[in-house]
Amino acid sequence: MRVVVAPDSFKGSLSAARVCAAVGAGVRRALPDADVVAVPMADGGEGTLDCFLAALGGTEIALDVTDPLGRPVRARYGLSGDGRSAVVELAAASGLPLLAEGELDAGRADTGGTGLLVADAIRRGVDEVLVCVGGSATTDGGTGMLRALGVRFIDAEGAELPPGGAALARLAAIDDSGVSDAVRATRLRVACDVTNPLVGPNGAAAVFGPQKGATAAQVVELDAALGRLADVIAERFGVRVHDLPGAGAAGGTCGGLVGVLGAATARGADLVADLVGLDAALAGADLAITGEGRLDAQSAGGKVPSVVAARASRAGVPTVALAGGVAGPLDALHALGLTAAFSIADGPRSLAEMTSDAPELLTALAEQVVRLRLDSGGV
Amino acid sequence: MRVVVAPDSFKGSLSAARVCAAVGAGVRRALPDADVVAVPMADGGEGTLDCFLAALGGTEIALDVTDPLGRPVRARYGLSGDGRSAVVELAAASGLPLLAEGELDAGRADTGGTGLLVADAIRRGVDEVLVCVGGSATTDGGTGMLRALGVRFIDAEGAELPPGGAALARLAAIDDSGVSDAVRATRLRVACDVTNPLVGPNGAAAVFGPQKGATAAQVVELDAALGRLADVIAERFGVRVHDLPGAGAAGGTCGGLVGVLGAATARGADLVADLVGLDAALAGADLAITGEGRLDAQSAGGKVPSVVAARASRAGVPTVALAGGVAGPLDALHALGLTAAFSIADGPRSLAEMTSDAPELLTALAEQVVRLRLDSGGV
Repeated sequence: MRVVVAPDSFKGSLSAARVCAAVGAGVRRALPDADVVAVPMADGGEGTLDCFLAALGGTEIALDVTDPLGRPVRARYGLSGDGRSAVVELAAASGLPLLAEGELDAGRADTGGTGLLVADAIRRGVDEVLVCVGGSATTDGGTGMLRALGVRFIDAEGAELPPGGAALARLAAIDDSGVSDAVRATRLRVACDVTNPLVGPNGAAAVFGPQKGATAAQVVELDAALGRLADVIAERFGVRVHDLPGAGAAGGTCGGLVGVLGAATARGADLVADLVGLDAALAGADLAITGEGRLDAQSAGGKVPSVVAARASRAGVPTVALAGGVAGPLDALHALGLTAAFSIADGPRSLAEMTSDAPELLTALAEQVVRLRLDSGGV
Repeated sequence: MRVVVAPDSFKGSLSAARVCAAVGAGVRRALPDADVVAVPMADGGEGTLDCFLAALGGTEIALDVTDPLGRPVRARYGLSGDGRSAVVELAAASGLPLLAEGELDAGRADTGGTGLLVADAIRRGVDEVLVCVGGSATTDGGTGMLRALGVRFIDAEGAELPPGGAALARLAAIDDSGVSDAVRATRLRVACDVTNPLVGPNGAAAVFGPQKGATAAQVVELDAALGRLADVIAERFGVRVHDLPGAGAAGGTCGGLVGVLGAATARGADLVADLVGLDAALAGADLAITGEGRLDAQSAGGKVPSVVAARASRAGVPTVALAGGVAGPLDALHALGLTAAFSIADGPRSLAEMTSDAPELLTALAEQVVRLRLDSGGV
């Protein structure tokens, strides 16, 4: 019996790798000879790099780049063991935690440091780069990253704009003649879990600007500046990113990468599943076990359990989700292919107790799930 | 697919019948065409009469009898629909709740009222009577019951002893010549869930006497009196009940019935299972679902889930237990035939929340269990 264990992390409690270990122990308790295949998953957010490194035997590359305000910062990205793919988390060089509270500067913060990480990966010869957005301190429409990859943003006088989103109000032209063939040959994929458009009341500035330090006035300015970027992208590349769902992720990074470099966007969990080879692991498996900290109707919207269930279902493999909490109705998840879901709670318990006992609870529950799945009735 | 739902009650929360209803709803949610067979169970304690009546389409017979102190009390017992079996709960006529706190009288209280209920059932022609002990106010070695069935307890002068355990100190002989053929032809079965012997430091008087109002001095007297009863039983009937495991149940009622009338004792859940026809329900079933308020290692000692699991296992039917709380290790239960156990908790929850939401939680969990058991992987 082959069991694929492909959970997300239990946020704030257990990494996906530790969830795999705990579940695997339970599977083997029920079935000592089970072939347990651990595929720690992630959704493009916290834990994605760890999961990528674990799955692809990769290494972390540390690099001196720039933080959102252009200051030196040492940041890391992941390179797969075969050197063909890289995972870059935007938060590593361009994240909010890099700035003290008084340093937030939504208009000036840029994604240049992240661009340097991507450029380094491309220089090393990768075929594809997965960019995980989320947690950024920036609202620059990804122009910092694009600049590091050879793109120039020019004002009406032909001068290059300074870094940051505010300056885009003066954007007159985009020059991509400096983008190398290597950059163009690299598949850029952006893990995009919000559906916000680039501009407007649900756009990057309006929704995410305030948490990055933007005042109401700055929100209006930045919204207009990102609109200007989208206009120029539409003129120059024939791609309209103003209203593209997800374009507003990470201060518009998603919109910029799609518009200027033709990056593909997808849900993080799907991109991670592709990178770590989930489909190959599922082929011929007898059971898939997934999980996340809390499973509810929203989990059907592209979170790890729904992606695992949908892919397992296509492979004819039943999927069980184990979660700290399970809140119904689960109909949408069942419709996607999830066979069943169980909470690891073993009775009345506080959240703190459940968090501290999560590994043992996962092991105990996984054992019961496999027993139920297997047992033919006799002793 | 035929699913037998055979849970105990969730003590203090849901009757076994309501557990059956909630679980059945979940089974049908997963599988609208399922043939759900509800067999509410009990372990000889609280809820046994309800479960018997529900399973055998029985009626309750109300009778004016005597309470532990010989005062009039109206009590009920259960008669099966076919009139062949009866369930008498000792607590109905001889229970502690019938006495106010100041009225407790361990030396005098007797089981005569219960005996009148049993006698009535026998007069109605039943083949068997299940006597459920537990909660008695008495320490009379079952002599009150036996008296109501025609047995005489005589002192050295040939006079009949007064009611109660204390008087047994003067017991010289037992005269069973007045026991009718009808009584002798009736199978008496005592549901006995404690293993205490009749006498000694773990006996009826020492362990249960104090809660029935016995002082330390009275405990010593009653222990000696029950010893005297056992001695005379051994002389007269050649049966040694002094150390018989379970003989100390219900103030020695179990010992008296076994010694004088050859009653059979067994674990309550097994007796109930026989009465309600659990084995017949399990034959050919695809899945059994049992449950109780709290499942733990002790549940293997003859509680409802272990009895259902063992019988289902013999019938080649896998069994899943659903419980408010599940506390491992479950190895002993698995060894008995229990396939798997799950808590109805769906995340961090207080006991009060779980108690009030128990029906919905049972339904949701039963749905998931049946889905997991059935699903072949495709959607």
